[in-house]
Amino acid sequence: MNGFTKRGSSKPEIKRLLSRRGRNLEHGKIGAMPLDQEVSQRLKRNEAGLVCAVVQEASTGRVLMVAWMSDDALAETLETGRGVYWSRSRNEMWRKGDTSGHVQHVVSAEIDCDGDAILLQVEQSGAACHTGKNSCFDEGGPLPVAVGGLS
Amino acid sequence: MNGFTKRGSSKPEIKRLLSRRGRNLEHGKIGAMPLDQEVSQRLKRNEAGLVCAVVQEASTGRVLMVAWMSDDALAETLETGRGVYWSRSRNEMWRKGDTSGHVQHVVSAEIDCDGDAILLQVEQSGAACHTGKNSCFDEGGPLPVAVGGLS
Repeated sequence: MNGFTKRGSSKPEIKRLLSRRGRNLEHGKIGAMPLDQEVSQRLKRNEAGLVCAVVQEASTGRVLMVAWMSDDALAETLETGRGVYWSRSRNEMWRKGDTSGHVQHVVSAEIDCDGDAILLQVEQSGAACHTGKNSCFDEGGPLPVAVGGLS
Repeated sequence: MNGFTKRGSSKPEIKRLLSRRGRNLEHGKIGAMPLDQEVSQRLKRNEAGLVCAVVQEASTGRVLMVAWMSDDALAETLETGRGVYWSRSRNEMWRKGDTSGHVQHVVSAEIDCDGDAILLQVEQSGAACHTGKNSCFDEGGPLPVAVGGLS
């Protein structure tokens, strides 16, 4: 039994990924994956040690949600290919889909020019928003804007 | 002379938009535009009073940048149809394109489910990134990710 197995994923791929990092799955608890040092040096974290993550659906280009990542969340995302965030409300790691089943499979990850934002392209299983909407911006909806006012 | 004229925009459209809000352009300084109360009530601001803004190119779906908005920046964006942000580094309003000419014309604005993020669809004049790249994520570039690791 390990952290991933408890959450319902016991694919051999995980073992392969973790063993690449010299981790021993027999020890019960995986613990935090260290973030690649080169990536870590590029991050510009906020006061809470987090960077912003924009999550975009690869197949449609729709922006699904904005979330936050700790170093550990980013490391786990990059290592496992699954969208993992830091829940500011629960103050804990948030492996998206553990409760809802609405897992995000990461297609690509990019960092911005000043290192304080990450852009993920994902394949989204089910709805991205906790309300059941495809995108969190579908739930919030449009704001009135003077379109092209200065064009 | 008014705030907009000093920054190089003196389009009649601005006068029209502002006069809709009962502002007198003859008074020299425009001052902050108040945010619509209904929109204001939906915002969940961070400790600095800001919300996150994700800016997406309407024609391509490419995410161009992540920026921050004060109430005033959001109000001006919605009122003028131009991308306006709060510069955290300069601690002042940032009317994107005033210096570079790389103005963003807003096509649509949406708010997310919990009110702490705004998604803008824009037509971008020139490059969005200060480095000259189309997107800030082109400048930062890809991070290594175990694609589909858990699929």
